[in-house]
This record gives sequence, C-alpha cells and structure tokens, in this order.
Amino acid sequence: MLAAHYAGNRTMTVGETDPAPPGPGQVQIAVAYNGICGTDLHILNGHMDARVTTPAVIGHEMSGTVAALGEGVTDRAVGDPVTVMPLAWDGTCPACRAGNAHVCQNLDFVGIDSPGALQGRWNVDAGLLVPLPPTLSLRHAALVEPTAVAVHDVRRAELAPGQKAVVIGGGPIGVLIAAVARSFGGDVVVIELDPKRRKAVADLGLTVLDPADDTVAHVEEWTGGAGADVVFEVSGAAAAVLGAVDYAKVRGTLVVVAIHPEPRPVNLQRVFWRELRLLGARVYQRDDFDTAVALLDAGEIPADALITKTVPLAEIQSAFDALTGGDAMKILVDVQAGQEPA
Amino acid sequence: MLAAHYAGNRTMTVGETDPAPPGPGQVQIAVAYNGICGTDLHILNGHMDARVTTPAVIGHEMSGTVAALGEGVTDRAVGDPVTVMPLAWDGTCPACRAGNAHVCQNLDFVGIDSPGALQGRWNVDAGLLVPLPPTLSLRHAALVEPTAVAVHDVRRAELAPGQKAVVIGGGPIGVLIAAVARSFGGDVVVIELDPKRRKAVADLGLTVLDPADDTVAHVEEWTGGAGADVVFEVSGAAAAVLGAVDYAKVRGTLVVVAIHPEPRPVNLQRVFWRELRLLGARVYQRDDFDTAVALLDAGEIPADALITKTVPLAEIQSAFDALTGGDAMKILVDVQAGQEPA
Ligand SMILES: [Zn+2]
Ligand SMILES: [Zn+2]
Repeated sequence: MLAAHYAGNRTMTVGETDPAPPGPGQVQIAVAYNGICGTDLHILNGHMDARVTTPAVIGHEMSGTVAALGEGVTDRAVGDPVTVMPLAWDGTCPACRAGNAHVCQNLDFVGIDSPGALQGRWNVDAGLLVPLPPTLSLRHAALVEPTAVAVHDVRRAELAPGQKAVVIGGGPIGVLIAAVARSFGGDVVVIELDPKRRKAVADLGLTVLDPADDTVAHVEEWTGGAGADVVFEVSGAAAAVLGAVDYAKVRGTLVVVAIHPEPRPVNLQRVFWRELRLLGARVYQRDDFDTAVALLDAGEIPADALITKTVPLAEIQSAFDALTGGDAMKILVDVQAGQEPA
Repeated sequence: MLAAHYAGNRTMTVGETDPAPPGPGQVQIAVAYNGICGTDLHILNGHMDARVTTPAVIGHEMSGTVAALGEGVTDRAVGDPVTVMPLAWDGTCPACRAGNAHVCQNLDFVGIDSPGALQGRWNVDAGLLVPLPPTLSLRHAALVEPTAVAVHDVRRAELAPGQKAVVIGGGPIGVLIAAVARSFGGDVVVIELDPKRRKAVADLGLTVLDPADDTVAHVEEWTGGAGADVVFEVSGAAAAVLGAVDYAKVRGTLVVVAIHPEPRPVNLQRVFWRELRLLGARVYQRDDFDTAVALLDAGEIPADALITKTVPLAEIQSAFDALTGGDAMKILVDVQAGQEPA
C-alpha cells in the first residue's frame, strides 16, 4: 500500500509498505479521505519534532470503510463507513479519574503520537471508531474531526439559542465554530484580517468584519451596549488576545481555541472588572463527535465551501504547499487514489 | 462632627463639618469602625484621581449603629447595629437586566464614587444596610466587607468541600480567602513572598509556602499529581500570574482577585492544554455579605489576628503610613473617638 510519512527536515515522503493485519481488538480501515490541518503543518515545519518520532505516518481528520476485523471485534462489519476519534487515554491519571479522559494527562493523540491515517490501510483500536450514516458522503465525513473541535468549543462556551458570539479568525476552525454556533441558534460575527478569507466567510452568509475597522463599536451597537455573550479566539495572534476581552459582556465568556506558543498579554483588569470567564478548550468528547456527524449529515456545515480541493496521496506535498501559502481553507487527500487493489 | 477627607496630593485632612440630616429613604449611621484597605491606599496615592472628586470622604469597610431615620424608612430602628454593602447600581444597564447588578456597568461604589464612612455621621440609602447580630462586636463587624469579597471569590470558584486551593498572596484578602475556603471545607495552601507575612499566616494555622521554593512540586505532591482544584491570584504580581496556571489541575479554576493595571502575560498554552477556567471576581452580592456576617459571628474568621491596630480618626494619616510600610495587615479607624457628643 501507499503511505505518506513525515520524514523530518520539512519533508513528506510517499512510498510503498506492506499493510499489517489488524491486531486483537483492532479494525483495519481502508482510508478514503484525510484532511490536512494546522497541526499537520506544524509537524511538517518541525515545530513538533520533540514529540513526533520519524518517519511518522501522520493524519487524523479522516473517513473510510472497515476493511478487516481483528480478533474479538464483533460489533463492526466489513464495508461499514466510519471515522475515528483519535484519542487514546490511559484511564488512570487524575484527569481520567475525574471524568476528563479527553484531556488525559498522558493522552496519545493518534496521528501525532502514534501512526495516523495517511496510509491505504490503517489499523486502529475498535473503540475509537465512530460509525457514519450511509447518507453522509465520505468526502464530507473527512470534516467530522474538525467539526467536533468546533462543537466542543461551542458547548464549552455554553452558548444558548439567541446569544451573540464573536469569532476572531476566519480560517477553517473559525468558520466551523461560526457554523456550529449558528446551528445551535446563536448569532455570529466573524473577524478576519485577510480580505480573501473575509470574502470566503461572507460567501457562507456569515457577517464578517475587518479588524482595521472599529469592531468594538460594531459589537457594542450589535449587542445594545451589552457586549457579546461569547468570544472565540481562533486566530492565535497576540493582538487578538489583547483585544478579545473588549467584545465580551459582563460575565461573558472568552474561549481560547488557538495555540499560543508564547505567553500572551491579557487585559486582566477587564477580566476582573466585568467578571469575565476565560476557558481553554481542547479536542472533543465522544458526544461532540456524534453531534459533528449529525450536523454534517444534516447539511448544517458548509462542507463543500470549506473543501478547497482534493489531491491524490502521491501529491500530498502540494497540499502542504498550498496551505502554507494561505490560499486554501481545507485540502483533502484522496488516500485510495493510486493504491493497488487489495 | 469630625470627618476625614482625601484632599488630593497624597493628603488626608481631618476637620469639623456639620452633619446633614438623613434624606428621604436614607438612614443616618453613627460610624463605629472603618477599616483601611488597598483601594483607599490607591486613592491616597493619587492613582484614582480621575475617578474621585476631592475633597472626598472615603471609607467603605465599616460598622456602626443607626442614629436617625429619614422619611419613609420604617424597617430599621435607632440603635440597630449595621454595616453597609457599598454598591449602588442603576438597575437599567444590560448587566443589571441580566441579574449582575453587583457589577453594573454604571456602578456607584459608595466610599469611592460617593461619600464614605470616615465621618461621625454617615447618611446612606436604607437599602444598602445589612443588619448585624448583637453577638458580633462592632470591631469584628468592620471586617464584614472584605470578608464578603473573600466569600464572593470562593463562591465564584465553586470550591467544593474536600477540594484543594492555592492562594497566591498572604495579605488581608489572601488570608480572608484562605479562611473562607477552609470554612467551606477546602484544604488551603498560601504562597507569600514576605517572611513576616508568612509567619503571620502560619500563626493562623494555615500552610504557607515561600515562592522561592519549588511550590509547583509541592502542590503536585500535595494533590497526588493532579494539581489544585482552585488557584486564587491575590498578589497582583506579573510573575504570580505567569506561574499560577502551573498549580491548577486539568479543568481547574484560576480566580483573578487582584487588580492588574497592566496587561499580564498569561500562559494560554497551559490554559488550552489543561482546559483551565480563568474567572474574574469583583466585589460581592448580597448573599456574600450575609454569609460574611455569619462567618464572623461564628468565629470562623481570624478577626483579632487580622486587626493589627485601631487608631482614632484624628490619627488616620498614621494608619495609611503603617499600611504603606507593609507592617500591618488591617488597621481600623475608631470613628467615634474624639467626636463631640451628638
Ligand atoms: Zn489519563
Ligand atoms: Zn446597571
């Protein structure tokens, strides 16, 4: 089978390897599509070399069908359409024991800490499988994982129907958060620096603001002087963090979705004065995955607009190049293209 | 009557003025004791000159007895022991309409934005009065207001019995938070830089750590590798903010109690990774005041240990000087000392 490896040194290699049979309790998946995300780009750029053992098969936003069952797996059938919730927790650490296994203190993130989906046949523990309805296309299903991130963020914010949310950052996760928040009954404004991305967001029927304008005054007017119920910081920019609290109402919530590798200045005076709540939100829980499947199946997520293009596995480097250039929202890798018939 | 005024230019003046009768709906209080707090010190040092109109009678941590009733006040009697919850909200702003009147967007903080308690006779709206039980001494009752701050902070953190809390900063508010958290069933560790304050905190039977030691390792061991349920940032120091998140468990809470006039670097990567919750907490609600009265009345608050000394109104400048020097925890002003009989 063909598999893509991160080989270190900003290089992806694609080569033939022999597929292994699924082990006991595992399922072998014929991977259909795998989306490339910002984390994969960080891996390629060497930012996670301390964590990733090369050569590494990466990839964790995927869809596929069950190809074979390992010993003891009885609740799946060959041909079932599936995706994978790529979290393996230890079940024993204080976070797991407190019911927060999704942020286990010794979490194995499958596709980063262990082999991922950018290969023709992928063996995963059966417990990680999430079944897909037959009505959901495998292309759209490759968006389940990032949609589950957005569902987790919106749930963590406790956004209620009729509430107003500001999303700072109009990339794929920002758009997914905006779409999920809208589907949960929220009113949403997106703030995005890049004019091309602003147009893409506007084309989805979302209100989008240029941060060069007086966005605080806009939100004040939009919310009748109260401020937004929830602000999602998805941009990763220091300036966005500093300004984010100015959008929030008294007792409003700011969700930190983006990765901030350096400590960021935060206006704690405003946090104190308005009794704000700032929440970290990471990955997802099983309910978030199930909701993401349902939202995609119901057409609530603008999947076609988000998928800029699909490339065969052999051309995966071009996907990373396009994402680095910032011209693409989401690029899918067609993992079966070019594979020998099994 | 004698009254103390902040006259601008780092100066308190004490002089005779004629007491006014209470207006309709007001109560006139013979102020017994008034504690001096960090905010009063900020006022004296000119940090709040943009907000305070001089000459200003300040003071908002007080106890006293009802001296006269204004027109229409029927639910109080002359001689009743009382304290005052010094918040006057507009009732109409978005925060008030959402049930958060205590952080009204147009809040009048009595003793800062309008005249305070450092005068022999003080007229306040009857609705601000909080009755005191006859078993609570008026000296101890002067600590109701700062204790209510601590109750609000601990309640906002949702600290549950058996949970572990780290309090960064062992001044009066830090000690009150620690005492309230303990009375709510929490286990508490205080971190304090100053050796004299460390000794004072230890004398109260609280565990206290020197930040020069490996406090993170201590908290890790104390919590069995989980981290603390709640961290209270009471120090106001930038370094404390940066380190505070390292004490917190997965999904733990960090309460921002201190004033931070400048934006502070916050380790958002840790906030994200552990899904932390950072909460601003300001002033108090009526329930917090009632609980503070009950805790002081029950002897749960180390009031005598906190009250370093009591000075007559005429010597108020010496109270500010002692607090500036950092040698005192809480200094009470005896407001009736030196007053002419009414
Ligand atoms: Zn765990
Ligand atoms: Zn108000």
